[in-house]
Amino acid sequence: MAFETVLLMLFVVFCCAKAASFIFNRIGVPGLVGEILVGVVFATVAFGDSTIAQLLGLHNSAGEETDVYHVLEVFSELGVMFLLFSVGLETRVKDLLSVGKAAFLVALLGVMIPFVFGYAYVEFFYDGNMYHALFLGAAMVATSVGITARVIKDMRLTDVKESRIIIGAAVIDDILGMIVLAIVSGMAESGGVDIGSIVTVTLLAFGFVIIVMLFSYFGVPWIKKKVQERNDAKFENDKNYIPTKYNMIILGIALCLGLAYLAEYIGLAAIIGAFLAGMIFADYAVVWGLEEKVEAINSLLVSFFFVNVGMKVSLDGIDGDMVLTILIVIALAIIGKYIGCSMGAKIGDKTLEKSSMNIIGIGMVPRGEVGIIVASIGLRGEYLSPELYTVVVLMSVLTTIIVPPLLSMAYKKKYKTDYVVQPDDQM
Amino acid sequence: MAFETVLLMLFVVFCCAKAASFIFNRIGVPGLVGEILVGVVFATVAFGDSTIAQLLGLHNSAGEETDVYHVLEVFSELGVMFLLFSVGLETRVKDLLSVGKAAFLVALLGVMIPFVFGYAYVEFFYDGNMYHALFLGAAMVATSVGITARVIKDMRLTDVKESRIIIGAAVIDDILGMIVLAIVSGMAESGGVDIGSIVTVTLLAFGFVIIVMLFSYFGVPWIKKKVQERNDAKFENDKNYIPTKYNMIILGIALCLGLAYLAEYIGLAAIIGAFLAGMIFADYAVVWGLEEKVEAINSLLVSFFFVNVGMKVSLDGIDGDMVLTILIVIALAIIGKYIGCSMGAKIGDKTLEKSSMNIIGIGMVPRGEVGIIVASIGLRGEYLSPELYTVVVLMSVLTTIIVPPLLSMAYKKKYKTDYVVQPDDQM
Repeated sequence: MAFETVLLMLFVVFCCAKAASFIFNRIGVPGLVGEILVGVVFATVAFGDSTIAQLLGLHNSAGEETDVYHVLEVFSELGVMFLLFSVGLETRVKDLLSVGKAAFLVALLGVMIPFVFGYAYVEFFYDGNMYHALFLGAAMVATSVGITARVIKDMRLTDVKESRIIIGAAVIDDILGMIVLAIVSGMAESGGVDIGSIVTVTLLAFGFVIIVMLFSYFGVPWIKKKVQERNDAKFENDKNYIPTKYNMIILGIALCLGLAYLAEYIGLAAIIGAFLAGMIFADYAVVWGLEEKVEAINSLLVSFFFVNVGMKVSLDGIDGDMVLTILIVIALAIIGKYIGCSMGAKIGDKTLEKSSMNIIGIGMVPRGEVGIIVASIGLRGEYLSPELYTVVVLMSVLTTIIVPPLLSMAYKKKYKTDYVVQPDDQM
Repeated sequence: MAFETVLLMLFVVFCCAKAASFIFNRIGVPGLVGEILVGVVFATVAFGDSTIAQLLGLHNSAGEETDVYHVLEVFSELGVMFLLFSVGLETRVKDLLSVGKAAFLVALLGVMIPFVFGYAYVEFFYDGNMYHALFLGAAMVATSVGITARVIKDMRLTDVKESRIIIGAAVIDDILGMIVLAIVSGMAESGGVDIGSIVTVTLLAFGFVIIVMLFSYFGVPWIKKKVQERNDAKFENDKNYIPTKYNMIILGIALCLGLAYLAEYIGLAAIIGAFLAGMIFADYAVVWGLEEKVEAINSLLVSFFFVNVGMKVSLDGIDGDMVLTILIVIALAIIGKYIGCSMGAKIGDKTLEKSSMNIIGIGMVPRGEVGIIVASIGLRGEYLSPELYTVVVLMSVLTTIIVPPLLSMAYKKKYKTDYVVQPDDQM
């Protein structure tokens, strides 16, 4: 494997993904949709006898994955890890505990109803395979914090009640989604539904989350205190002493890699460890400049994940039956989330008007990357068929595309804001 | 290749490298020395029958490199590319043209004399192999800007005359080093010393450098102007419009990958392309926040390069003869640089005192990463023997270790500053 080939592949994939993301952002569609499309194009569009993926050395002439592809895959896996790490950085344990009943109920019902819808559809109306049912259910669970937050931020309505409930719920929803994923993966790994293994996985998942939260409450402040004491002591001895500036991103990266490995090792997903590693530092993300540093690493890595997602979407098999499946799953994903979340909001906060329930219901619909991640894990472990994987990717992409215009309309109706979404505030 | 294995390898290598770097910085030795040592330990220290590298899946039981190692290697190559990209970001074309005669002569003589020393030693006293001679000479050329600048910054003497000459010379020296490397690589590739190929390579190298410099002079300001005009026009139409903030690091990464590939493609080294890509953005590195963003990427990647360097050092073959070679090469590296640079300084600026010539001579001695990079390229192309590779790595490491204390002594003698070097201002 020549480094020159790897370099060319990285360059072409990176540039195409970023260009697509830029163009899609310009026309008001989340950039990740463009990046996924690049992957689809690479794997399907051919010049002469070779697809673009073959020309880039990602697939050999038989369409199999090469050593160069394995580099892309490692970049892709690390990319999604650091993406979840950065989501963790935005998730403070304190905020989680304070957002109150409404957010929690929105999250809980918003997780349960889509899961039941997805599970029931596969179990009773599709192929009846229990693993497929579990993973499709799990993939329909988690709202994408990023996309929701992005729209609210663009509309400058972060401080209104509905927005606070949505953001709080999206965060709790992510954690519930992680636990659902952990339980589902554990069940698939252990090869069956036995209560013992569900309990074990749930305990492991909760134990892992709780230990990490405890460390974030006690460990991180302790480290900060020690550094401070050391600097104070040195300053006593030498008034010219400049406080030692530790590059905390190194600790962050180490913890992200370490917890991701640990999560993978005990049978959870690597991204769960990465997310928790981020949460540990959430209180210090701004002070230590971690967010923008991880953002820089993400600028390099994340696109490879979405391109890889697209490369695995097989459009070949799409026929009449599959279009029907796709439409049904999308409908279930939207209806399940909308009903679950607007009901949860009303139960949690009786004072909410219908227009607020509507905003919250719509705001929680986009699935984005988390659903795709769950489906990737399912596909890798062969717990999800390639057809259902494609269905999930299309469901995630389409719920993501639909929401921004609908949500901004719902907000506009209530808050009479004329502010136009600025979708190109990044590249 | 399981992702779990890759993750464990990345975690262990990353943590060991950063811990070693931290400890070495604490005791006043540049951190990269610790990172190289980690690599040496991984490849040589064994538990039972297996070296640490074998336990980590980097080498198989026969000691050969595995798929997991190839991931480390890609990280290592990208790491050194982004390191040179960040050096480029600190190298403004304007400063290069304005530092004047003294800096230029310090750089020129400081490149020529060590090259001649290294070349002559191998050609006439060592194995007589012309390629070995060329690459050893080239590896002895480039002063490490980073280490020199670090000491001066720590001593808070950035603004004194000697410091300005050293920094200016170190930058020009880097470019001359790149050109020497380009010429030497080109000669090795084309398989012989013919004037035609030297001229071609020199023209290619200069052409590449000049085109990039022209783009940096005209192209980058043009892009900046266009973005500004677009924002102004939008603001005219809509007073609520917030200027579009482009994430310029993406353009930086794309150009770094692209020029690195192009350099590799036309027969130069990838790092030359990466360095030039950095130089293109040097005038905007601060405004666009590029420096700290690349720093974050480097936090993740660079250590893998130095660990990989260490893993390739073979201590097995070191006997009496080799120790002698090492001592001679180190002596030539120090004496050649010291004489070349202090002479160059005196010729360029007749008013300099002996104490200033002494400071400049010492300040230019450390070779650090650039010598190692040149040697790595030589080893990869089999233009340098493993023994001479080990010699170069030890030479780079030792000139790097020796200088900080000597340079601070020389400065102290002249400027009577009591300020103590703070070596742990990073992690």
